[in-house]
Amino acid sequence: MLIDTIAIVGVGLIGGSIGLALKRRRVTRRVVGVGRRAASLRAARRLGAIDHGTLDLGRGVADAELTIFCTPVDLIADQARAAAASCPSGAIFTDSGSTKARIVARLETGLPNDVNFVGSHPLAGSEKRGVAEARPDLFDGRVCVVTVTPQTPLQALAVVKSLWRSIGARVLTMSPEAHDAALAFTSHLPHLAAAALSIALPEKYNELIATGFRDTTRIAASDPDLWTAIFVENAGPLLRSLTSFEQTLREFRTALKSRDTQRLRQLWKQSHAKRQELAQREGIHEDD
Amino acid sequence: MLIDTIAIVGVGLIGGSIGLALKRRRVTRRVVGVGRRAASLRAARRLGAIDHGTLDLGRGVADAELTIFCTPVDLIADQARAAAASCPSGAIFTDSGSTKARIVARLETGLPNDVNFVGSHPLAGSEKRGVAEARPDLFDGRVCVVTVTPQTPLQALAVVKSLWRSIGARVLTMSPEAHDAALAFTSHLPHLAAAALSIALPEKYNELIATGFRDTTRIAASDPDLWTAIFVENAGPLLRSLTSFEQTLREFRTALKSRDTQRLRQLWKQSHAKRQELAQREGIHEDD
Repeated sequence: MLIDTIAIVGVGLIGGSIGLALKRRRVTRRVVGVGRRAASLRAARRLGAIDHGTLDLGRGVADAELTIFCTPVDLIADQARAAAASCPSGAIFTDSGSTKARIVARLETGLPNDVNFVGSHPLAGSEKRGVAEARPDLFDGRVCVVTVTPQTPLQALAVVKSLWRSIGARVLTMSPEAHDAALAFTSHLPHLAAAALSIALPEKYNELIATGFRDTTRIAASDPDLWTAIFVENAGPLLRSLTSFEQTLREFRTALKSRDTQRLRQLWKQSHAKRQELAQREGIHEDD
Repeated sequence: MLIDTIAIVGVGLIGGSIGLALKRRRVTRRVVGVGRRAASLRAARRLGAIDHGTLDLGRGVADAELTIFCTPVDLIADQARAAAASCPSGAIFTDSGSTKARIVARLETGLPNDVNFVGSHPLAGSEKRGVAEARPDLFDGRVCVVTVTPQTPLQALAVVKSLWRSIGARVLTMSPEAHDAALAFTSHLPHLAAAALSIALPEKYNELIATGFRDTTRIAASDPDLWTAIFVENAGPLLRSLTSFEQTLREFRTALKSRDTQRLRQLWKQSHAKRQELAQREGIHEDD
């Protein structure tokens, strides 16, 4: 890549890991971090995730040919619109948000200064937060979705795909709507189910949880603000995946009510086969 | 403990781990394994989980002062009743089944040969099976529920509690019904939710799963026969926990439908606090 300066807005787990990976792999000469807290930016610089940190969005993006927004999904569109006024003409913007349709719709056209936005979502992270949790290999072999619409400028698309590949990710391209429908099932619904299991557990049974409960509800400890924003942004597709989940729960309910051993075994066999298939898939097809 | 011979019926992950732990800690002189397949019994002997293996239930328990049934929950009561005719008079039986009320009701009174049954459930294991997965430290620091009813003979209860403590477990005593109500929430409902998430995932989204989905559905790969039996045995309490889970899902649905940010944040905060509390509990109170 021939990019001199890359800005990262939001230097937490994801932004910090991108910075570490960019520096480690010498993808760019200079990484500028934009944050809300001086202490986080100092930590990011100490860890080697950024070369320079600033609290000022305009100054942070002033020299950046490429800016990556790694802030909560409800902030990305406003921040990108604000930043576009201050960055070099023709700069490229992307993001790491877990929802895409609303963000892309608000940013794909009409940004000042000939700025081009292409949506991204690297499928990496954890329920933890903060630059202290950042790792340069966070994206190694992980899928990163890059969104494409009839409006997507091809040159910017190529740059954004190269960006993710340069830090180890495997790129899949799809429409923002296809992304959101898929992630509703593969990420947002499991978060909702984990949160609901955690909430539904009566206090008095705390002593009797075991590994099954722990694993199943690990993501119930995810950040409330981040996940509230994701749920609101992707409410439509999430409601549709929830309907499908509730339908499956009703099938279990019907079988349980009549102690229908055969039907319960059928459901368990289906679950077992599906989960084994997911575990055994050797790799994920990479988009070219 | 002053027990010369302990029999383990069903030498898989749990039975094998009990055997390894008993041998490692020299709790008894001799461990006899009873199984359905000669190859598994040979493997168990090779691994040091048992001293002697047999396919014959009657012969296996003939010299055992204590027998532990580690077979699927739908087999335990019949096997224990059959074994009671062949074991030393006054022997003690226990089990490792994930459900308790039906098993205890069928075994607590009327066993031939003055055999006393006390129900147990060590909260340990995984979605894996077989003696090859057995570990001598599987019960270290883990809770083992031992059931108590007005009919439970106190001497047998003391022996069974000592058994689990001798292999590292922390014993909690409670009624079989209290156990089943609790485990419906802490184990069976998470299994049901994981299975339903796995089943509900449309095939075409397989490429887009990430760690959240993987963790949340790990136990969806559990053995279909074992879990069908557990669901049938504990259908009543499981249906009640499912009702409570579905109610929480409806609260999310209502908030999502109206894009109610405040309510969604409230739910997420509840989930986050609850899950953090479970993660931070330093230890589980041990029953004395």
